[in-house]
Amino acid sequence: MRLRRELEYQLFDVFGMDDLFKTSHYADHDRNTIVGALETAEKLAEEKFAPFAAKLDANEPTFDGEKVHLIEEVQEAVDAYVAAGFMGAGFDYDDGGMQMPVIACQAILSFFCAANLPAAGYPFLTIGAANLERVHASEEQKKLFMRPMIEGRFFGTMCLSEPEAGSSLADIRTKAEPQDDGTYRITGSKMWISAGDHELSENIVHHVLAKIPGGPPGVKGISLFIVPKYLLDEAGAPTQRNDVKLAGLNHKMGYRGTTNTLLNFGEEGGAVGYLVGEPHRGLAYMFQMMNEARIGVGMGAAALGLAGYYASLQYAKDRTQGRALSDKDPQSPPVPIIEHADVKRMLLLQKVYSEGAMSLILYCASLVDLHETAQTGEEKREITRLLDLLTPVAKSYPSEYCVQANSLAIQVHGGYGYTRDFPVERHYRDNRLNPIHEGTTGIQGLDLLGRKVLGDGGEALTRFMGLVGETTAAAKANPRLQQHAEALEQSAALIGDITKALGEAALKEGPERALANATLYLDVFGQYVIGWIWLRQALTALRLLGAGGGDEDYLNGKLAACDFFFRWELPKIGPQALLLRNLDPATLETEGDWL
Amino acid sequence: MRLRRELEYQLFDVFGMDDLFKTSHYADHDRNTIVGALETAEKLAEEKFAPFAAKLDANEPTFDGEKVHLIEEVQEAVDAYVAAGFMGAGFDYDDGGMQMPVIACQAILSFFCAANLPAAGYPFLTIGAANLERVHASEEQKKLFMRPMIEGRFFGTMCLSEPEAGSSLADIRTKAEPQDDGTYRITGSKMWISAGDHELSENIVHHVLAKIPGGPPGVKGISLFIVPKYLLDEAGAPTQRNDVKLAGLNHKMGYRGTTNTLLNFGEEGGAVGYLVGEPHRGLAYMFQMMNEARIGVGMGAAALGLAGYYASLQYAKDRTQGRALSDKDPQSPPVPIIEHADVKRMLLLQKVYSEGAMSLILYCASLVDLHETAQTGEEKREITRLLDLLTPVAKSYPSEYCVQANSLAIQVHGGYGYTRDFPVERHYRDNRLNPIHEGTTGIQGLDLLGRKVLGDGGEALTRFMGLVGETTAAAKANPRLQQHAEALEQSAALIGDITKALGEAALKEGPERALANATLYLDVFGQYVIGWIWLRQALTALRLLGAGGGDEDYLNGKLAACDFFFRWELPKIGPQALLLRNLDPATLETEGDWL
Repeated sequence: MRLRRELEYQLFDVFGMDDLFKTSHYADHDRNTIVGALETAEKLAEEKFAPFAAKLDANEPTFDGEKVHLIEEVQEAVDAYVAAGFMGAGFDYDDGGMQMPVIACQAILSFFCAANLPAAGYPFLTIGAANLERVHASEEQKKLFMRPMIEGRFFGTMCLSEPEAGSSLADIRTKAEPQDDGTYRITGSKMWISAGDHELSENIVHHVLAKIPGGPPGVKGISLFIVPKYLLDEAGAPTQRNDVKLAGLNHKMGYRGTTNTLLNFGEEGGAVGYLVGEPHRGLAYMFQMMNEARIGVGMGAAALGLAGYYASLQYAKDRTQGRALSDKDPQSPPVPIIEHADVKRMLLLQKVYSEGAMSLILYCASLVDLHETAQTGEEKREITRLLDLLTPVAKSYPSEYCVQANSLAIQVHGGYGYTRDFPVERHYRDNRLNPIHEGTTGIQGLDLLGRKVLGDGGEALTRFMGLVGETTAAAKANPRLQQHAEALEQSAALIGDITKALGEAALKEGPERALANATLYLDVFGQYVIGWIWLRQALTALRLLGAGGGDEDYLNGKLAACDFFFRWELPKIGPQALLLRNLDPATLETEGDWL
Repeated sequence: MRLRRELEYQLFDVFGMDDLFKTSHYADHDRNTIVGALETAEKLAEEKFAPFAAKLDANEPTFDGEKVHLIEEVQEAVDAYVAAGFMGAGFDYDDGGMQMPVIACQAILSFFCAANLPAAGYPFLTIGAANLERVHASEEQKKLFMRPMIEGRFFGTMCLSEPEAGSSLADIRTKAEPQDDGTYRITGSKMWISAGDHELSENIVHHVLAKIPGGPPGVKGISLFIVPKYLLDEAGAPTQRNDVKLAGLNHKMGYRGTTNTLLNFGEEGGAVGYLVGEPHRGLAYMFQMMNEARIGVGMGAAALGLAGYYASLQYAKDRTQGRALSDKDPQSPPVPIIEHADVKRMLLLQKVYSEGAMSLILYCASLVDLHETAQTGEEKREITRLLDLLTPVAKSYPSEYCVQANSLAIQVHGGYGYTRDFPVERHYRDNRLNPIHEGTTGIQGLDLLGRKVLGDGGEALTRFMGLVGETTAAAKANPRLQQHAEALEQSAALIGDITKALGEAALKEGPERALANATLYLDVFGQYVIGWIWLRQALTALRLLGAGGGDEDYLNGKLAACDFFFRWELPKIGPQALLLRNLDPATLETEGDWL
């Protein structure tokens, strides 16, 4: 209920989703159909996913050497998800989908992430895999693999990492030998493959990065292959096993319900693989999906942040303990702990982090919709540029800050929060994966500063700052937000200065020096982005309060959280900006032997 | 090996432990005996505790309704610990102990904390309980209960919290009815009791806070009782069960090997309890032990921080992946990941947090030794005042920052760190308890600002700042450290300003207003304390480098970490100080309904 309230605010009030319904692509949808879909998702998540989240965590998947075993509730849940048509929510009618805006699809996903992220992982990965094929696969491949994924009969995976090459894809060794029939034989090992094996679907469609012998070295020699677990007969039905073997399950701290696997391809001579698109372009194809996956990671992290926030908020209202500091009468009744200042601090921080993160994710989703409905190629390129710039933040801010939020949710519960009787410790464990997978936070920092900012000479950054400038201009006109808007402008100036200094360093001293503190840059820029997001939310709240539509507590909460962000969070970038501007050399000059 | 190197540096070089050997109390010890004890502890921890840490985590204690079951390795480990005489390390010869300085005892403990904190919990809690009795119990009680604890035959607990009164001891309901024979009958429930039941020892000696009917309300009516699991015969041997029942085990995220229990006292009419000291003074007695327990929590947190640091440092040196950013040849060999700037950042942060935390804990321990050997009552009072001031920092800084360190240790490992094949995820889960138990971080903030700083009109703070001033004066004389010393002086001035403003607010507007951001104050003051600690370590390193005794890598590491702290960490207090000085009202004025 709370989550739906929040999502409706974001979709309709902050991001003006109604405008989308006026476009021909989304003309069949309106506010009612979207709210209906959100209600369905809410109910399904609550009834079919949430009830067994703790049980799934306590009973992680097992492998008997033959098959993977999951508790039966997972099958029931994913079946219900498929039956509701949510697999195809974002796909076009022509592809068998519901052609819903991506922002609505993300909002739908968030209910399942909040309820039971590990169980939801199976359909989500499949949606991502199907989307990869939608853009890059042949019509034949789409018919054989994408459609069954959208129908929920086949599930999908992405196979990038290898045991010896986690973040360093240049070093992957999986080989793809061309055959006379146009197929390839794949041999190699893939590590950390989520949903890499299970019995939930008729087939599993692996999307595998591999190198065709004789191609260029490094990332330029990587190609993308479809490698199904079961080969298909002419009618497209799964028949015998392909040469893909589950070598083992990884046993994780959290996120336990999603199988995480080591897969061996070609132990018996080579798994049959089908080349997607052109040879040696696999990384580019995968990266389009990777961006989506990164935003998906941010979504999961934000949803877990919200889940923990809501749980601890409820706990803080229900649980009585202690009394006001000025109340010296030990016989007066204890108060709900939400009345203690430090508990309120912990709730405010969670609100700022998790609602800020979710809003950013939905904004990124809205960009995909704008891209879809844009009229010109130039417009589309602009939107892509903006989305590329924001993707590392959409991945990392929710991941880093919503783990902190989950830690605060534990702290609000005190000792109870540390027990497995309450969901918050599980959120905390599940969420801790998010700063790692689909590119660690460190990788996101390099991507942002090296590729997205300095890589185009600051062009994307400058344009984004122009966009933020429109918001600050509006906010400066309102006395309630003027100070915050000015603070955000100062942050922009600071980031501009730093970026200039780093750009010069890159030219004069090379990338090591310029990128030495890229993770700090990511954090500083992330706070700036979230500041913009909070200003937008506050402007919307003021508008609605002025219109007198009710729900004042909710809207005042948005204003209070915005204030809190600008007083408590944004100033933290000051000391970090100084380190960046000074090109602090600690991470370069400290010798490994000193550590 | 690494930990022992670190401890020897702290004990002998930074804190000048050799001086203690000149006092009559510790005259039997010298550097050789202490190093010998450290070596024994290191070996024992490595051979008897570390090997089953993962197994104990995976096989948490169970209760069959009759008895608690632990994996058998725990018994072997605690037996070996007892056999080595470590239970009595810090107790006087007269009490059956080894009369070792407390700083050495803490150093010994740290090996076991780093190796297997949950297993080490049993002896540690017993040492604390025995120490409580040493100070407050009667000779008869000491003979019956303390001596068997020091001998390792009985184990001990502290029973403070109740299900409805976690941090709020004023509200405890456990009752103690006086009997004609001078004993009491205890009835009530105690929650979160660590090591509250097990079969590791002949008996368990509970130390229970309860209220004698007719006493004053609130904390002034709390008394302390010894309540053994088994009653003793005249010879002091355990006989029949006392009326104490295990009502259930708590199932935790981490720290799983230490049973955490709900105990029911008096279900069958009343557990036999023996009053310690005078009626209604129980809280004061317990608080003396609580201070020790809080420093013990900080020790555990710091040791886990170091364990994670060492594990991830080794991993970063061994694991190769990727190459230098300026190396565009994908065929050049991958480098150890320690060469990547962001990995170095994560290692430096861990070093700063965990070595800083450990050094602070050992400093606090050294104060206990100074107290023991002080010549005058005035000296003793001074030392007590200083220790009281620093205790909330010693509890909270390691707890908060070493959880962060453990998170960074996971991050250095990438996906591997998230699996249970590596110890770092376990450190992270175990350590997350430390900001909660023995008084949450929020409680520590109130204790520091309300009781320790404003409570004595800033007297203790002023004196501590004087002590820090001696260090900064010495550091200012050294060009290598001059800037850091000046930064620390500025921090002192800032904290002085804030404290004055908060003191005035307390007078004019009451405690709610002054203490609204006490957790922030704790963090700001904690960074100041740790800055002092790092300056001391750096001064020592410079002295040793000047003397040319070798081990330059290690000493350069200390200087690099000190630099890193002053450039990367201390400046973070700036924005927080501003919130404090402005008496930021967010935590008071944000209404609960807005959240």
